[in-house]
Amino acid sequence: MYRVRCVCLLLFICRSLVSSEELPTLRSSPDANYWSQRDRILVEESQMSLGGRLNFEYGEREANDVLMAAKRAAIDLGFRDPSSFLPARNFLSVADEIRRSPTFQMIQAMPKGAALHIHNLGIVSLDFVFGNVTFRDNLYICRPPDGSFRLKFRRSGGSDVTCASSNGWVLLAELRANASIVKDINTRIRDAMTLTVPDTTKAYHDTNAAWTALENAFQTLAPLLTYKPVLEDYVYQGLAELYRDNVLYVEIRGSFHSLYDLDGNAYGPLDVVRLYKNTTDRFIRDHPDFIGARLIFNLRRSGSTRREAMEQYFATFASVQNEFPDFVAGFDLVGQEDKGKPLTWFLEELRTIAPSSRFFLHAGETNWNGLSPDENLIDAILLNATRIGHGFALLKHPRVLELVADREVAIEVNPISNQVLSLVDDMRNHPASFLFARNYPVVVSSDDPGIWGASGLSHDFYEAFVGIMSRSTDIRALKQLAINSIKYSAMPNEEKIRAYAIWKDKWAKFITDLGQRSEALTVT
Amino acid sequence: MYRVRCVCLLLFICRSLVSSEELPTLRSSPDANYWSQRDRILVEESQMSLGGRLNFEYGEREANDVLMAAKRAAIDLGFRDPSSFLPARNFLSVADEIRRSPTFQMIQAMPKGAALHIHNLGIVSLDFVFGNVTFRDNLYICRPPDGSFRLKFRRSGGSDVTCASSNGWVLLAELRANASIVKDINTRIRDAMTLTVPDTTKAYHDTNAAWTALENAFQTLAPLLTYKPVLEDYVYQGLAELYRDNVLYVEIRGSFHSLYDLDGNAYGPLDVVRLYKNTTDRFIRDHPDFIGARLIFNLRRSGSTRREAMEQYFATFASVQNEFPDFVAGFDLVGQEDKGKPLTWFLEELRTIAPSSRFFLHAGETNWNGLSPDENLIDAILLNATRIGHGFALLKHPRVLELVADREVAIEVNPISNQVLSLVDDMRNHPASFLFARNYPVVVSSDDPGIWGASGLSHDFYEAFVGIMSRSTDIRALKQLAINSIKYSAMPNEEKIRAYAIWKDKWAKFITDLGQRSEALTVT
Repeated sequence: MYRVRCVCLLLFICRSLVSSEELPTLRSSPDANYWSQRDRILVEESQMSLGGRLNFEYGEREANDVLMAAKRAAIDLGFRDPSSFLPARNFLSVADEIRRSPTFQMIQAMPKGAALHIHNLGIVSLDFVFGNVTFRDNLYICRPPDGSFRLKFRRSGGSDVTCASSNGWVLLAELRANASIVKDINTRIRDAMTLTVPDTTKAYHDTNAAWTALENAFQTLAPLLTYKPVLEDYVYQGLAELYRDNVLYVEIRGSFHSLYDLDGNAYGPLDVVRLYKNTTDRFIRDHPDFIGARLIFNLRRSGSTRREAMEQYFATFASVQNEFPDFVAGFDLVGQEDKGKPLTWFLEELRTIAPSSRFFLHAGETNWNGLSPDENLIDAILLNATRIGHGFALLKHPRVLELVADREVAIEVNPISNQVLSLVDDMRNHPASFLFARNYPVVVSSDDPGIWGASGLSHDFYEAFVGIMSRSTDIRALKQLAINSIKYSAMPNEEKIRAYAIWKDKWAKFITDLGQRSEALTVT
Repeated sequence: MYRVRCVCLLLFICRSLVSSEELPTLRSSPDANYWSQRDRILVEESQMSLGGRLNFEYGEREANDVLMAAKRAAIDLGFRDPSSFLPARNFLSVADEIRRSPTFQMIQAMPKGAALHIHNLGIVSLDFVFGNVTFRDNLYICRPPDGSFRLKFRRSGGSDVTCASSNGWVLLAELRANASIVKDINTRIRDAMTLTVPDTTKAYHDTNAAWTALENAFQTLAPLLTYKPVLEDYVYQGLAELYRDNVLYVEIRGSFHSLYDLDGNAYGPLDVVRLYKNTTDRFIRDHPDFIGARLIFNLRRSGSTRREAMEQYFATFASVQNEFPDFVAGFDLVGQEDKGKPLTWFLEELRTIAPSSRFFLHAGETNWNGLSPDENLIDAILLNATRIGHGFALLKHPRVLELVADREVAIEVNPISNQVLSLVDDMRNHPASFLFARNYPVVVSSDDPGIWGASGLSHDFYEAFVGIMSRSTDIRALKQLAINSIKYSAMPNEEKIRAYAIWKDKWAKFITDLGQRSEALTVT
């Protein structure tokens, strides 16, 4: 810490002596104090970075010492032995190692503010979806001859058009009672719900293969999670898992498809949104220090999206937003951008709803440069998006970068998602390092944490803090991420003020607790 | 092409109507012409990019049509079928596929200006080093019991302290006469000289493993290439290979170790530099349209570098530079930055030679952020470097980015080297995409093309043009790279003027030839 303080002191001395334009070079001024110039650049870069303008408040310096000792130990060990550096490896094979690390545990204890980029079918942990949902009554399985399987809650078995295989729908519990196949069937169901494949450094050979696995997981999950009794528990569980991860507010993206029950009732989008709202209200009653949730209504931008379906879809959105003007925050288009329709394809419809709706648009979730998925970034800006989802290709669009900064359009960075879906191999190469270094408006979120075994926001905060930001970036960057997440949320102002007050109390407690853990300074 | 012209036209219309500050949004001005705003951003980004301010000169538009048809075909096929996209795969397994591509062949025909970042032991193709050098008379092999081998030119065989194995030094030609082992021994020698390992998408699991293979290749090559008769041919061959690749000038980095011959003579650094100079002069006599070469004197920055050796080394450099003030362009420190001493370790010595020498410093060739290898970037700037080698970590240092642009410190980008040495997996993630998008002072070079089977500069230009730059980036970016390579070279001004004149003649011929290949427009 001595060095950091020394550097800060030097800044003030230097800044009063030399203006930015007359920085001397070694050659032009051989007697200049090389080290003070060097420290000055380091301080300037620290001040340019995310959180770099925040002052240390009461107790934060001591808490920072504890956190930074752990962070620096992990990085310095990685520098000596790169194989130990977890952010350089695929998350699918290091999730548990990260969970056991001291830095992660401190980050998990930290109040992280709001999760602003998270999809409804990807929130909840596999332990709940597999371990609880698939063991419920009335769950049937259909196993067509092609080796695939489908799950659905039903009153009874038998054949129907959706399961034309010879055996028809069979009660899953009956299959599981067969000791010779239970292990195999459980493994297959579990594997179909997650991207996690342990013991591999790179699970999917390219982004298309990873997206196929992701879409397959959603196809397995959807019939389970659109069963009304399950969805109520699932939404509550999702909020509970975020709450346990010290997240106090969430904006959930989803298509909010119709629900079903065993009595043959169908529930439309309004019912689905009402279920989310009622469940959120119930969760808040049980946890008064949880701020709440909002929904972002999605349309899939797949290649097969048809023009004829658009009108009805946007009408549905309008009616839902009309019914729940506060709970439905806005609109987005989701799905793999490389393969889906570009934003321009939806231009007429988006212009129709633009006057009454905010946009939180996925854009630039791609490695390409100069093709439709990265040019979506231009459209997101022209459509006046409130936030941009991913923006992975942002550095390839310097004019958009300027506009994003000028207009404070927050970029929702999802590090683990980008790695798991094969956009980036080693987190140290994630383009957000530039956004963090220049204090662009950013939030860090987790996309589909349940699908790849991440905890709430903590794993993504860990990757950002240890793997993407500078070794010297400290607790103030994490604080700024939390503040940004409230600032750039869709909460109305009075709710932001309340959220900030609650978060600040939790932050003070976190700082006190962390400062007292001085024994962590001895972590090696 | 209609679209490009249309976009250019729109720019002028738009720019006269709306200033940058009052760009309307969809919401604030629902009737604004969305598409004209969109095209305007695209044009602005095009103008911000490398070469984007160049006007199309005589014939360039037609030549560009041919080139861009091939480039767009490769990218659009890759967008439909990512497995076909060569820059997304490791160069070690796609070098030949790239060589067969129409875009590569056009780039190879293009006069590329100067190669400004290339190491002396890595210039020449494996075909020459293995196929010619290892078949020369008097080449002996030593095979210690540990399974390794060493090569050296000698008068005779027998044992000595450098080869304590039971069989001592054996004439390689004799071993090769043994049909039962010739294939094995040739494979082993060849493999030891290259990083190329076909049929793998990622050859080395991390940057340390790749660097170990590179250092081993240099250790195999050094005893061959410090044999005086070989070095003369090798240097001539290196210039010839660059010349055939349409490179007209080169700055060669090297440590210029002592040479040996069969008569027991040793040749010191002055002799070595003289050999390079004489060979270059001979090559220019044979090829009057080749501009020439200069040397950049290197010191290895390995972890074991000792303080005591420094004084003598810098004295050697001073004497060489004193003897060849024009031919020796300046000084650099080389070797893996992650494992070597940082620039600050050499600070006193560098300050001593700074008044009389230019620096071309490797800096930031690393994935790390906030550690000594990326902080070398700060020192390169403070040491007033003329150019920076690699600068891969530059985006992590925003203040250095500003200074690099303000002072026009050219960044020597070596795309294939960065991929082969495991800094980046998929070229589309190379951070130079940002440098190209913002027209930072850059040159593209090839580091050690002979070690990984690249041709001169052409493979690296291909990767930059197809894999890193935008799909819409056109022939003007390649032209700007060539112009930059002359501008940022160590040539004195009058030589630059002559080089530019020669290059411009060749460029005009290239443009004419390319424009006539309209059949290439049908490439799919």
